[in-house]
Amino acid sequence: MAKINVGLVGITGYAGMELARLVAYHPQMHLNMACSRAEAGRKLSEYYPFLQGVPAGDVTITSYSPEEAKDRCDLVFLAVPAGTAMRMAPELLSRNLRVIDFSADFRLKDQSVYEEWYNLPHTASDLLPEAVYGLPEIYADQIKAAKLIANPGCYPTSIILGLKAAFQHDLIQSSDIIIDSKSGATGAGRKPNLPTIFSEVCDNFRAYGLPRHRHTPEIEQELGFLAQKSVTVQFTPHLLPTNRGILSTIYTKLKQDIDLETIHKLFTATWANCPWIRIMPMGKLPETRFVRGSMFCDIGLVVDKRTQRLIIISTIDNLCRGAAGQALANANLQMGLDVTTGLTQAPLL
Amino acid sequence: MAKINVGLVGITGYAGMELARLVAYHPQMHLNMACSRAEAGRKLSEYYPFLQGVPAGDVTITSYSPEEAKDRCDLVFLAVPAGTAMRMAPELLSRNLRVIDFSADFRLKDQSVYEEWYNLPHTASDLLPEAVYGLPEIYADQIKAAKLIANPGCYPTSIILGLKAAFQHDLIQSSDIIIDSKSGATGAGRKPNLPTIFSEVCDNFRAYGLPRHRHTPEIEQELGFLAQKSVTVQFTPHLLPTNRGILSTIYTKLKQDIDLETIHKLFTATWANCPWIRIMPMGKLPETRFVRGSMFCDIGLVVDKRTQRLIIISTIDNLCRGAAGQALANANLQMGLDVTTGLTQAPLL
Amino acid sequence: MAKINVGLVGITGYAGMELARLVAYHPQMHLNMACSRAEAGRKLSEYYPFLQGVPAGDVTITSYSPEEAKDRCDLVFLAVPAGTAMRMAPELLSRNLRVIDFSADFRLKDQSVYEEWYNLPHTASDLLPEAVYGLPEIYADQIKAAKLIANPGCYPTSIILGLKAAFQHDLIQSSDIIIDSKSGATGAGRKPNLPTIFSEVCDNFRAYGLPRHRHTPEIEQELGFLAQKSVTVQFTPHLLPTNRGILSTIYTKLKQDIDLETIHKLFTATWANCPWIRIMPMGKLPETRFVRGSMFCDIGLVVDKRTQRLIIISTIDNLCRGAAGQALANANLQMGLDVTTGLTQAPLL
Amino acid sequence: MAKINVGLVGITGYAGMELARLVAYHPQMHLNMACSRAEAGRKLSEYYPFLQGVPAGDVTITSYSPEEAKDRCDLVFLAVPAGTAMRMAPELLSRNLRVIDFSADFRLKDQSVYEEWYNLPHTASDLLPEAVYGLPEIYADQIKAAKLIANPGCYPTSIILGLKAAFQHDLIQSSDIIIDSKSGATGAGRKPNLPTIFSEVCDNFRAYGLPRHRHTPEIEQELGFLAQKSVTVQFTPHLLPTNRGILSTIYTKLKQDIDLETIHKLFTATWANCPWIRIMPMGKLPETRFVRGSMFCDIGLVVDKRTQRLIIISTIDNLCRGAAGQALANANLQMGLDVTTGLTQAPLL
Repeated sequence: MAKINVGLVGITGYAGMELARLVAYHPQMHLNMACSRAEAGRKLSEYYPFLQGVPAGDVTITSYSPEEAKDRCDLVFLAVPAGTAMRMAPELLSRNLRVIDFSADFRLKDQSVYEEWYNLPHTASDLLPEAVYGLPEIYADQIKAAKLIANPGCYPTSIILGLKAAFQHDLIQSSDIIIDSKSGATGAGRKPNLPTIFSEVCDNFRAYGLPRHRHTPEIEQELGFLAQKSVTVQFTPHLLPTNRGILSTIYTKLKQDIDLETIHKLFTATWANCPWIRIMPMGKLPETRFVRGSMFCDIGLVVDKRTQRLIIISTIDNLCRGAAGQALANANLQMGLDVTTGLTQAPLL
Repeated sequence: MAKINVGLVGITGYAGMELARLVAYHPQMHLNMACSRAEAGRKLSEYYPFLQGVPAGDVTITSYSPEEAKDRCDLVFLAVPAGTAMRMAPELLSRNLRVIDFSADFRLKDQSVYEEWYNLPHTASDLLPEAVYGLPEIYADQIKAAKLIANPGCYPTSIILGLKAAFQHDLIQSSDIIIDSKSGATGAGRKPNLPTIFSEVCDNFRAYGLPRHRHTPEIEQELGFLAQKSVTVQFTPHLLPTNRGILSTIYTKLKQDIDLETIHKLFTATWANCPWIRIMPMGKLPETRFVRGSMFCDIGLVVDKRTQRLIIISTIDNLCRGAAGQALANANLQMGLDVTTGLTQAPLL
Repeated sequence: MAKINVGLVGITGYAGMELARLVAYHPQMHLNMACSRAEAGRKLSEYYPFLQGVPAGDVTITSYSPEEAKDRCDLVFLAVPAGTAMRMAPELLSRNLRVIDFSADFRLKDQSVYEEWYNLPHTASDLLPEAVYGLPEIYADQIKAAKLIANPGCYPTSIILGLKAAFQHDLIQSSDIIIDSKSGATGAGRKPNLPTIFSEVCDNFRAYGLPRHRHTPEIEQELGFLAQKSVTVQFTPHLLPTNRGILSTIYTKLKQDIDLETIHKLFTATWANCPWIRIMPMGKLPETRFVRGSMFCDIGLVVDKRTQRLIIISTIDNLCRGAAGQALANANLQMGLDVTTGLTQAPLL
Repeated sequence: MAKINVGLVGITGYAGMELARLVAYHPQMHLNMACSRAEAGRKLSEYYPFLQGVPAGDVTITSYSPEEAKDRCDLVFLAVPAGTAMRMAPELLSRNLRVIDFSADFRLKDQSVYEEWYNLPHTASDLLPEAVYGLPEIYADQIKAAKLIANPGCYPTSIILGLKAAFQHDLIQSSDIIIDSKSGATGAGRKPNLPTIFSEVCDNFRAYGLPRHRHTPEIEQELGFLAQKSVTVQFTPHLLPTNRGILSTIYTKLKQDIDLETIHKLFTATWANCPWIRIMPMGKLPETRFVRGSMFCDIGLVVDKRTQRLIIISTIDNLCRGAAGQALANANLQMGLDVTTGLTQAPLL
């Protein structure tokens, strides 16, 4: 069987780097294009020494053109900033390519919400209705049929997966949800600026982006779909002195007195057929290292009888599950492959 | 003026180590006794190489005896486990020594609450009424007169200082408080066990102690005094891959619509005369490194109009402000010195 | 084709954990036995939560017995302490099993050297002549035919691979070699003790094991084979505040005036057919992260004309290339598979 | 006694930040000027939140002018880049101010060596003869009399102090010295660029600046003075994933067979009257955390009889001893104070 040719536009960030790592040994895909204006002409392995001697490292970096994409690819991953993706997606779709966009440009169904939170006019809003939010466990059927995938944000992925079973079984009050999230520094991107240099992050911890982080409307949109009503959350991100990993501590209020055993069974049932969602045994809590470099989302459950609260702790790898790995899972579905193809790495403890 | 002679029982933990660091150059105190059965006979600087050439390093470690304490000290710091402190305190007090206990043994006014959460019978409960909770900004007058100080826990220190102004000005609902705290690994103590070895903590993040961490009743007792009614909180501690530092993100519900400017003024007014409490400028958030090695408690304020919540972010150094430094401040007050004596180090960024 | 059944004796250390990670998705091997007296009866994924939902996680841990090994395995990995391996290896070999030993028990050809440096009598010295030192790039033919493999130490792997080309082309003086090595903390093992707890390693750096680290005779033995004469080295290990990774800075004295370009060509030629040895481009230096979680050994070259020294910088992942991955490569060779089978992961940056 | 007014030109780097921390509670000095064009008009504590509530935080940042310096200061610290300092120093000296320069501009006695290694023409070379190299243990008398101090580099400080006793007692061959140094990331400065962002440094280790790091001629100059002959060293710096701390592993060849006990006595004798130099007990090795935030230089000694080498391991805090603290010690000497004034902090473990 001929391999599927894929392209990557935007290689200098961590999500692009992670995609190159994962696609390198994908049994059915071949990285046939990698684009970056600044690095054009070099081999990918010259830019990323860790890819020397790895199949994907041999591709020569080019400047992006939709024509080259059409000639060389079946599917294109866009790892470019918000605003740029909405310009590239239409010209790739019109050339009959599948597109998976890492940015927020096609995640929000309501154009005005996008424009308010991202402070940008949306120039491709006609594509919003057809764009599919790429969370494979929830939207697999739509993903298979989609031309354009809006790959979810890293925080929203951990939060939506953490809360799905609670909404499905109508366990919690939708008006009282507080989400305290913590992310490793790769989530802050690879652009050098003072707050992200080593000596400002190491041995330090802080919150940021308060009170209105841009992932808030994305979280609220998807939780609203799950709850089948409008949801407003309190969302606070923090910066961890680690490379990878997100842990979201989600505080919810139970609708009725229900014990941990019952809740644990309901969560387990919801995710029974999803190989990447692991409900921790009762009494055990997830840790970011248990999912490092993998597609797993680990979910731990705590009930506090004193306060009638269910605390859900959800962890993912922000680069793999929260970005490039999830994109590849979406690509698998779009191209008719099993969703786990090339994505069965065990976590690197 | 003759120096005040102080003793330290329990040197092998981080709090004891930090006390040795701070007392070393205290202008009015002299470390005249350091006790540890396991290390008796060595100089303190042999056990702690970082104290070589530092005044406090010259003291010879001895096995604890109350008689030696009486002969050599005016005041004794107990850096020993819960259960041991309640045994030592009476025999030191009866010899007319001042005692500052780092453990939880004398923090809880209600003996039955102690016995429930610590799973230990209390053998010195007659001392509970006279023990003073050693938070200098709140109990300075009582501390000055006290023989026995219960030095506060690290998490409670960050939380009580963070919330005091909100209760004082009756800003928040006392029934809806969620506290998401994160602490550096020195807070987990210095006893080697698998979950605290480097490779299990580094590049990792996790919650622990759920849903009933032992600091919960201490937090609720003191917040109850501030609120003048019973308070139940949701308290979740997490382990940071850093040495020092606690950051508590405290979610509260405002009683009425009130803007950030007003709240900021009220907090600033509450703490106007307290040199160690720093209210961050509006729009700025505290970071654990800003208080490293110091007595400062930095407090940042966020109001989310969408949810009517006031988010208070409070940071301290868990070993200095959260343990040994606060103990030394209490000792200053007990011995008639200015509370800041020997405690004016700038943070080590 | 039927899968090869392998067993793992000793699961509680980092090397055993890494083997479980790597064998989990090996296309031709099946983990059919995992032994630990302390954890017998649990599933491997109960002991290692990161293996939940991963094939290898389902095996039930048993107490080691050679009979069970014979019944369930074709090949056994021994991840047990020095001294224990020499007891187990004979009884496994006599049952016609292949054995790969992670310890030092069979690495040194000279029994008296072993007994001097490890301070243990050798009780299976009759096996020393047939044991093969498992460095695949150097001993592939012998490994294929071997029953018993002595898997190399982590430091020696980085050093021997770094120096091989220099000896092969007779570039350096064998009497003047200084090796300054730095290793991540997983190299110190998983037994909790004070010097390895997080707060003693984090934000710290130190040398250890001086002047006689146990890897010294192993390094000198193998360099002696390469140099075809006796070699004495200065070897100094240091402890890095990282999880994984070894970087060895090797100072050698050039025999004659020879430029970097020539040396670079000779090194490149030596390793032309070895997919895991990557000579860095001239002017580039290796970093431990470039090899994380992989089998690569990256080698950087520097010539200082002022001192006539060739500085070789060699990096590996201490757990994968320096222990479990190399063991699996040896197993591949022993069982007639391609050496890279199941070992083509790209590094996890 | 009136306080000495000091000024700081260049506040945005780590050395300037550290000077502000140290001078804040100096009993005899007052920070009366802080200059930065980019931050002029703000208070120092607005730029550095950790200085809120600390005396030095109140100074208003100004743009540098030599006239203001003359009006406000007795002594000026220059924490500006090489090339800028040589422009500022003359105009400050001509106004009768003492100057302590953190850069390399006045460290090298030979103008041509400076111009070769720093690739800059020297525009104030007439000042080179009078500039004093500010290592207090070696040049105290000259420092007391100097107008212009060249504050030593961080690596050279650790190395020169480590080797002084060996040269003084004629123990080692001056032609065979290899120095393998490792530094925390604050040593790389505070300018954001890709190689210094957190995710590129964390959990990583690498060498850099090979084979000709700019500190090499400074090391060789000062070792030459100690050895009283020309010295050429092999110097290799590495980047540690820590904030602070330098550890230099120095490999030397003994001139004759001499045992560790004798060497240890000679080193101890050399440094008997220097409160900041601590010779580790025999068998103990220094660690960077033992000197964190302090002026100590810890020196460990190892003799390898197999190779006739003396290995000297020397540690300092690169920002305090290696920059700002040493500058303050020099200022103490220049202004007639005891060298340790304001510099007696115990290390922050």
